[in-house]
Amino acid sequence: MEPVDSRLCESFQSAVELVGKRWTGAIVTVLRDGPMRYTRLATAVPGVSERLLSERLRELETFGIVTRRVLPGPPVGVEYELTESGRELGEAMDPIGVWARRWMERRVPVER
Amino acid sequence: MEPVDSRLCESFQSAVELVGKRWTGAIVTVLRDGPMRYTRLATAVPGVSERLLSERLRELETFGIVTRRVLPGPPVGVEYELTESGRELGEAMDPIGVWARRWMERRVPVER
Repeated sequence: MEPVDSRLCESFQSAVELVGKRWTGAIVTVLRDGPMRYTRLATAVPGVSERLLSERLRELETFGIVTRRVLPGPPVGVEYELTESGRELGEAMDPIGVWARRWMERRVPVER
Repeated sequence: MEPVDSRLCESFQSAVELVGKRWTGAIVTVLRDGPMRYTRLATAVPGVSERLLSERLRELETFGIVTRRVLPGPPVGVEYELTESGRELGEAMDPIGVWARRWMERRVPVER
């Protein structure tokens, strides 16, 4: 029997930990509609604080999932956009969303 | 502009947090090949401790993702198997794995 490839596990693990941070999935989902100003992002992602939104965006930028662009204005602003990697990540998250809607929303505790 | 559906966010979030716990992805992956005895699972998932393996399996059972069956033996043992939900979860995880292999393994830090 083949054990699970631990290198594969690690990259899967890093990806899923990144996506699993609160708000990260929502940020990527919102940006799938196209580039968005920071101020609009803050209202499009319900309930996120400014601090956490900035933190998550910085992290996504570090991972090459979003790019940040300063807009000359007026009004001066900052815009975020998914990279190719980010767009592919958005698509890769879809089946988990479908699964969750199918199996988590109607979930009732299993009898032990 | 439509804000992200927060109910959808919550079920996605629960799913991704479940899958993102260390070893959970590996356990589901290993069980995709078919039912497996606990003792074989412990060697098929590299590096997991007995305590964490048991804990993760119990959690997956609670979420209706695996079922547990006591085998009469000899040797007496316990076998785990994916449910329909579990098999679908395994498939839903695949694109994240593909994305991770493509974008996380070759990742170099992005210049700021």
